[in-house]
Amino acid sequence: MLTLYAASNTVAVASHIALEETGLPHRIEWINFADGGQRSADYLAVNPKGRVPALVADGSIITETPAILEYIADVSGQLMPADALDRAKVREILSYCASTFHVNHAHKMRGARWSDDAAAHASMAAKVPETMADSCAYVETLLDGGWIAGDYSIADIHLFTICRWLGGDGVNIADFPKLNAHFEAMQARAAVGRALAAHG
Amino acid sequence: MLTLYAASNTVAVASHIALEETGLPHRIEWINFADGGQRSADYLAVNPKGRVPALVADGSIITETPAILEYIADVSGQLMPADALDRAKVREILSYCASTFHVNHAHKMRGARWSDDAAAHASMAAKVPETMADSCAYVETLLDGGWIAGDYSIADIHLFTICRWLGGDGVNIADFPKLNAHFEAMQARAAVGRALAAHG
Repeated sequence: MLTLYAASNTVAVASHIALEETGLPHRIEWINFADGGQRSADYLAVNPKGRVPALVADGSIITETPAILEYIADVSGQLMPADALDRAKVREILSYCASTFHVNHAHKMRGARWSDDAAAHASMAAKVPETMADSCAYVETLLDGGWIAGDYSIADIHLFTICRWLGGDGVNIADFPKLNAHFEAMQARAAVGRALAAHG
Repeated sequence: MLTLYAASNTVAVASHIALEETGLPHRIEWINFADGGQRSADYLAVNPKGRVPALVADGSIITETPAILEYIADVSGQLMPADALDRAKVREILSYCASTFHVNHAHKMRGARWSDDAAAHASMAAKVPETMADSCAYVETLLDGGWIAGDYSIADIHLFTICRWLGGDGVNIADFPKLNAHFEAMQARAAVGRALAAHG
């Protein structure tokens, strides 16, 4: 049994979808960000970084979305291609999602991570529609009407999870037709529907 | 033959070290950041993101440090553990290095990615010593006097590459004894010395 520590509609959605897709037995331990649950002593004992997701597997705790997604793929034998170059393309997307696309989004609400100045926070938030649209434009060049890196994989799941934030970040996904089609294809998957239903 | 597009003393150092460690045949294509080489039409044809590193393998281009490091480990059969949980710990460090530790560093010189306001750039740069020290303090809790995730791996290489920037970021690595010992153990490796010699 795997335990996923998740908060509603955060990037933990990606790990949750991967668990639903693979059918690995799991349970969700919900962390309430509105109550500062990610900063509680109990949760900091799980993940001292105070972020979600965290996955408990065989008594070990795994953090960081790309690591959790790869672990789920590893132990299920699903959602990752067999060829080394194909795997590299999946990992390229995971890394881009974690270190550029998600980081762009984080500058809307989490500017205090990188500056102590309220005016700077406002200027960072003001640029988020532009940086998120830039990320969409880049991803659009990688899509060809199908999945992001060959067969359906954990890269599609990570990408979709971030694209759910686009509306709130001032980006109209319909401006990116291939990305929009990818988003709709993801929403049509039963496992995605099951995971999202739990996030309200 | 692999071709690595690299710029001196950037995060491309990590991929360069991994190539030296594994002995995979390779050559380096140098990009000169001082001349804006990463924004040249020739290089944007290789990597439209305008960043280094990029690895050309079998006619395909792989970007993003974690993806390149994993590819080098994949095709060499080196620098990654065999067990799924151990691999997850390596990937957790790679992801932390790419999406938190490196991103903290980037706020010193690359604030224009996230704000159009010069005062905001200055306030971001001012916080870099604090955020980099916080990252060091977190990594210090993971170290036990040896490598970062069991046997020597690509996670050690990525971590070391970022730690080379600490002095310039206002952090004294000697304040973190286990991290400092890790840094010195990395510097003592012959393959690391060969790669660094090429970066001047």
